[in-house]
Amino acid sequence: VKEFELIDRLIPLLPGNKETLVGPGDDCAVLDVGVPGKLLLFKTDAVVEGVHFTQDDGWGRIGRKAISRALSDIAAMAGEPLSALVTLGLPSDFDFERVKDIYQGIQERAAMFGVSVSGGEAVRSTQGVFLSISMVGWVPQGRLLLRKNMRPADALFVTGDLGGSRSGKHLDFIPRIEQAKWLADRFEIHALMDVSDGLAGDLQRLREASGLGIELLSEAIPVSKEAKKAAQQGGASALNRALSDGEDFELLFTVPASVAVALLDAWKERFPDLKLSCIGKVVPEKEIRILSRTGRFTNLDCHGYDHFQ
Amino acid sequence: VKEFELIDRLIPLLPGNKETLVGPGDDCAVLDVGVPGKLLLFKTDAVVEGVHFTQDDGWGRIGRKAISRALSDIAAMAGEPLSALVTLGLPSDFDFERVKDIYQGIQERAAMFGVSVSGGEAVRSTQGVFLSISMVGWVPQGRLLLRKNMRPADALFVTGDLGGSRSGKHLDFIPRIEQAKWLADRFEIHALMDVSDGLAGDLQRLREASGLGIELLSEAIPVSKEAKKAAQQGGASALNRALSDGEDFELLFTVPASVAVALLDAWKERFPDLKLSCIGKVVPEKEIRILSRTGRFTNLDCHGYDHFQ
Repeated sequence: VKEFELIDRLIPLLPGNKETLVGPGDDCAVLDVGVPGKLLLFKTDAVVEGVHFTQDDGWGRIGRKAISRALSDIAAMAGEPLSALVTLGLPSDFDFERVKDIYQGIQERAAMFGVSVSGGEAVRSTQGVFLSISMVGWVPQGRLLLRKNMRPADALFVTGDLGGSRSGKHLDFIPRIEQAKWLADRFEIHALMDVSDGLAGDLQRLREASGLGIELLSEAIPVSKEAKKAAQQGGASALNRALSDGEDFELLFTVPASVAVALLDAWKERFPDLKLSCIGKVVPEKEIRILSRTGRFTNLDCHGYDHFQ
Repeated sequence: VKEFELIDRLIPLLPGNKETLVGPGDDCAVLDVGVPGKLLLFKTDAVVEGVHFTQDDGWGRIGRKAISRALSDIAAMAGEPLSALVTLGLPSDFDFERVKDIYQGIQERAAMFGVSVSGGEAVRSTQGVFLSISMVGWVPQGRLLLRKNMRPADALFVTGDLGGSRSGKHLDFIPRIEQAKWLADRFEIHALMDVSDGLAGDLQRLREASGLGIELLSEAIPVSKEAKKAAQQGGASALNRALSDGEDFELLFTVPASVAVALLDAWKERFPDLKLSCIGKVVPEKEIRILSRTGRFTNLDCHGYDHFQ
């Protein structure tokens, strides 16, 4: 068992209270704070130099990435972001101009979504830079699109293209706040999450949360140009990259199969420039399997991107 | 100008929104989320190995310290903590048993104050361990005990003893949640904060926020046994240590002078085991000065503990 899976088992053992409706294990925590018709979303996300970014990525883009990841978690609940705090770990010799660039990147995305940056702190780091973003937001009461809510025979959708994000998208992506809200306002979404650790790994999470499985159609998986280009240079296939590269920050969701066609039509009209793909369906068997174009099933057991691999 | 002061100037330039009543610059951000009679507190606090703790401190105590610091910020608003998220940065070779100890320490303090740990994440750190705690809590509407609210001729109080915290208190302190709430419920507190960076440095923050100054009585400053012991071994005087050691996590507040005696009497009855000291008064001149037992004034310009010094 990997270290991080052990930690995932520890966190749910920590104490809850009556206000905490959803604790660890979904994209955001959900708190009932007594606002009529609304629940509070609460999330934190950290990026670390040498793990999630390098200095060559540019400090403005690094700041933008950090806040965009937290915004993507709010999107994964079809929520509306409200306010963010920024924790910045800096080596003692860090150049102040670069700090300005980081905050500039944060500010840009915060302003795009009407989010306040209501505080935070800079702390000394003994080595590289790290950035942790805390965020609160809202979701309408009665609209918790949790991972465990997927149902047998649901159609499974994903936005955009998958794989190859590390060639640039992971720094520049726009969180799917608007799309998630549009979807949840109009359609009966059962489960919703963002694809952050790679489709294969994130499907395992849907499986674990719901006790159900997924059947993927290999031909339906939207493989990015970048994943195809990387595959041409050797190593993993383009499909495998789309399944496991991670950092896509697209929306992954299930709806009743009866809704699928109407949803695709409405989506094309509303978001003509953003692909939406039906990539499979929910099955009662607790496994993730992929159906190749030759009609062969393969069980998918890769865990997607794991920080400790 | 020090790096961190520059950063402090940058953060307030980040965007606000109509819900954000108090942004950067006080102990917590304050958001009006539409709950009748209550405002949401929002705070994040990070500790870094080699800066705020060492491995020798013991992992359980390190976890306890991390969450206690955030709780102390909630206390500094006389607030009630509600829920926390834990971000844990770990080197790849980190021992899982130690992670359990960290969470055990967090859990202990969370349970003590009825706080849920509603999520978080473990991320890989390229070097040492870091821990960032995000917290939300409540404060009654109309009871914002902000630093800027101190007034001329207010009496200045501090709880407990100051200095020498690094010999153990910084790991084991109990956040003054109960005391702050008791004070705010019963007395007209003007300004309240926690002493985290050393009294001298934190008084400068009161000065900057309020545009007023402080006159301290050197003999009234509660110097800890630990600071006295350290001074006997050479280096800075015990008083100087009490002024600048930092990590005391005591409450610092001002009240109208007319209230001071009644407050001291009521305190002694309610908290007989915790010292409360009136250490000076608020003055209109924008300076921090200290009156020695020989009747001599000295301006205090030390900044307390600064992570970049």
